[in-house]
Amino acid sequence: MSRYFIVLTLALFLHQAIASQSQTTVNKDRLEGTIFKLATFGRDSMGITNRVAFSDADIAGREYVQQLMKDAGLDVGVDYAGNIIGKRQGKVPTKKPIAFGSHIDMVPGGGNYDGCVGSLSAIEVIRTLQEKQIGTDHPLEVIIFSNEEGGLLGSRALAGEIGREALSVVNSTGFSMAEGLKRINGDPDKITEVARPKGSLAAFLELHIEQGGILEQEEIDIGVVEGIVGIKWWDVEVSGFANHAGTTPMDARQDAMLAASRFIIAVNEEILRAEGKQVGTVGRIAAEPGAPNVIPGRVVLSLEIRDLSEEKIRMLFDAIRVRGDSIARESNTRFSYTPIDVNSKPALTDNKIQAWIADVATSLGLTHKQMQSGAGHDAQDMALITRAGMIFVPSKGGISHSPQEFTSAEDMANGANVLLNALLLLDKELE
Amino acid sequence: MSRYFIVLTLALFLHQAIASQSQTTVNKDRLEGTIFKLATFGRDSMGITNRVAFSDADIAGREYVQQLMKDAGLDVGVDYAGNIIGKRQGKVPTKKPIAFGSHIDMVPGGGNYDGCVGSLSAIEVIRTLQEKQIGTDHPLEVIIFSNEEGGLLGSRALAGEIGREALSVVNSTGFSMAEGLKRINGDPDKITEVARPKGSLAAFLELHIEQGGILEQEEIDIGVVEGIVGIKWWDVEVSGFANHAGTTPMDARQDAMLAASRFIIAVNEEILRAEGKQVGTVGRIAAEPGAPNVIPGRVVLSLEIRDLSEEKIRMLFDAIRVRGDSIARESNTRFSYTPIDVNSKPALTDNKIQAWIADVATSLGLTHKQMQSGAGHDAQDMALITRAGMIFVPSKGGISHSPQEFTSAEDMANGANVLLNALLLLDKELE
Repeated sequence: MSRYFIVLTLALFLHQAIASQSQTTVNKDRLEGTIFKLATFGRDSMGITNRVAFSDADIAGREYVQQLMKDAGLDVGVDYAGNIIGKRQGKVPTKKPIAFGSHIDMVPGGGNYDGCVGSLSAIEVIRTLQEKQIGTDHPLEVIIFSNEEGGLLGSRALAGEIGREALSVVNSTGFSMAEGLKRINGDPDKITEVARPKGSLAAFLELHIEQGGILEQEEIDIGVVEGIVGIKWWDVEVSGFANHAGTTPMDARQDAMLAASRFIIAVNEEILRAEGKQVGTVGRIAAEPGAPNVIPGRVVLSLEIRDLSEEKIRMLFDAIRVRGDSIARESNTRFSYTPIDVNSKPALTDNKIQAWIADVATSLGLTHKQMQSGAGHDAQDMALITRAGMIFVPSKGGISHSPQEFTSAEDMANGANVLLNALLLLDKELE
Repeated sequence: MSRYFIVLTLALFLHQAIASQSQTTVNKDRLEGTIFKLATFGRDSMGITNRVAFSDADIAGREYVQQLMKDAGLDVGVDYAGNIIGKRQGKVPTKKPIAFGSHIDMVPGGGNYDGCVGSLSAIEVIRTLQEKQIGTDHPLEVIIFSNEEGGLLGSRALAGEIGREALSVVNSTGFSMAEGLKRINGDPDKITEVARPKGSLAAFLELHIEQGGILEQEEIDIGVVEGIVGIKWWDVEVSGFANHAGTTPMDARQDAMLAASRFIIAVNEEILRAEGKQVGTVGRIAAEPGAPNVIPGRVVLSLEIRDLSEEKIRMLFDAIRVRGDSIARESNTRFSYTPIDVNSKPALTDNKIQAWIADVATSLGLTHKQMQSGAGHDAQDMALITRAGMIFVPSKGGISHSPQEFTSAEDMANGANVLLNALLLLDKELE
């Protein structure tokens, strides 16, 4: 054995020893076991799990999660907004609670990781504290938010951002929010009472899968989320003139489909032209009358733009509209834009908490990078009422909202360990 | 009055006199009156007429037309294919019949001119012959074809081109062809018996509105139809990968919608690149999963190409496919093409009849031009079994299959006069 090799081995040993020094870690296999168990609630004969909020599967999954929380020693209840909240006392009664959690409901045909990783990791964190008999100065709250996928119902209610009109929205189960809330032991008539005053929590942390492919591609363990992008949607209507596809010469057409195609390409070009991580998507399209032998007279399509800056979203939309004007002139069509669902504003996480999460990751020997969240999360609502932080772990192939969604046991445990140690650091550092 | 003016006036008088010399003409107001009357069958409270084949309105309209035909002295019957056939004896019993006519059924939300102008003009021609006591050597047959808009049912049956599988097709009334045929006194079990042997008719003539804007734009009275274009349809499937529109960076997307847009523009470019009157249309599109916040993983669209030459349609499709291949490579998507409804082959009209129609138009003082029909017509089926000719009159604004469809009384009478005199010329010239 060469002297060089001995020195290297010693250095590696010391690095690991320093890295893990005083770091508490979760039970990786137990965490993965709860992920697999939760995936059985709503699983069909093809092995695909469907657990949309308010479904029977959602109700069964929520019961399983509540039992886990009770077993971990939490004082568990369901608030009027259907949020499952598990409380653990702190050693200093005057301190405000630190909250953390995510959601367990799914989109139709979604995956078993999504909000489940953050939810079950939060519970695993409590189990670890319980096992290792670690107390915190701050009280702790594990929150499993209701109906995240159907418009962040639970977290919006906690942030005091829910209006009564939201309660009539019906999701794919066929239940309205109001009916659904009753099914999960909430109370639509009292939902506004759950709002937490600004500053009533010390902090909020959420662990979530990335739902994109950046961490995997760059082989990085942990994403430190700088912010959650704002989302703007528009319906874009292209009006031409429907006419006979056989008898109308090519140069006499007012083809709304052709104009819409030029517009979709212009959207892509304008989004790519600007520097930054903004994204723009046309996901929905309908052409009328919609027959192979009729030139479309009307096309309606969706336009979505996401970015951390509302100002940038506005600038991009303006640039896209200029392109639409020019396409309209060239193709003898008209474009009109109707904003829809303008509620999702960008949310920034707390700079200090970002730095602490990064420090904790390093101390655990994990690589990390700052990144934005392209998807909406409960943390964006919690950021309205407290300092918030968010931790990402890799998604295999960047695939999300699909049964092919996957995050390894190793990556889930890494995320849970960062969550646990960030929580302990916050407990020390925060007021 | 100058001598020059006198000469000019005399020349104009002589021109008109020569033009109208021995030309028999129809009753313009009576013809327009029957157009207006027929439009009342199926008219709703908004003033829009809906008379889809097999509907109650279609049945009522057919009764009105049969009464008109009986009043004009025709021997009227309905064949097993639902065609209304009115026969008039000829002076020479050995001669084969000359047939002429069109259809009175409409597309949903269609117009009152379409096939009605040719149908009611055919009847007006017979009324004129009756009034003026003009006999013909050939027997005459006025044919009002059944369900033209739903796949040329009646004319395909007469041409022996109908298969039993066509009878199960259901139209917008909810009736299958078989059920519908029974409603209009046809007999689906005996439909193949109506097929006319090739050569059993002396000729077939059809007057129709242009359904395009060429005659109006060029201020020409009469279109002499060279042929009816063939129509090919394909379903084009673009496969990408559906993913989260927020978390998937722009450069990591396999966006089927963006690729489909490039394809739609490529279709337009390839159709325009070639010389000629060919048309190509994308009229139908569907994106999956079809949500504003999901990058489409699959888009299916229709491709239609029409031309008088099948060879040219094939060449255009090949060129479009090459463009599709290149878009697929650039966008990391796949394109596949499924041919549908390949039954509509190009049909050429008889050269000699084209020339006679042109001569008759000139002798009536009407301008004319050779043109192709971009729409399908009963004449294309009749061309399979006899020499066929087709006469077009202008459509206002080129609008068709719409309540805004319009042809003036003057233009309808011009068409009916050309039909009448072409018929008399054919009666003299044909075997």
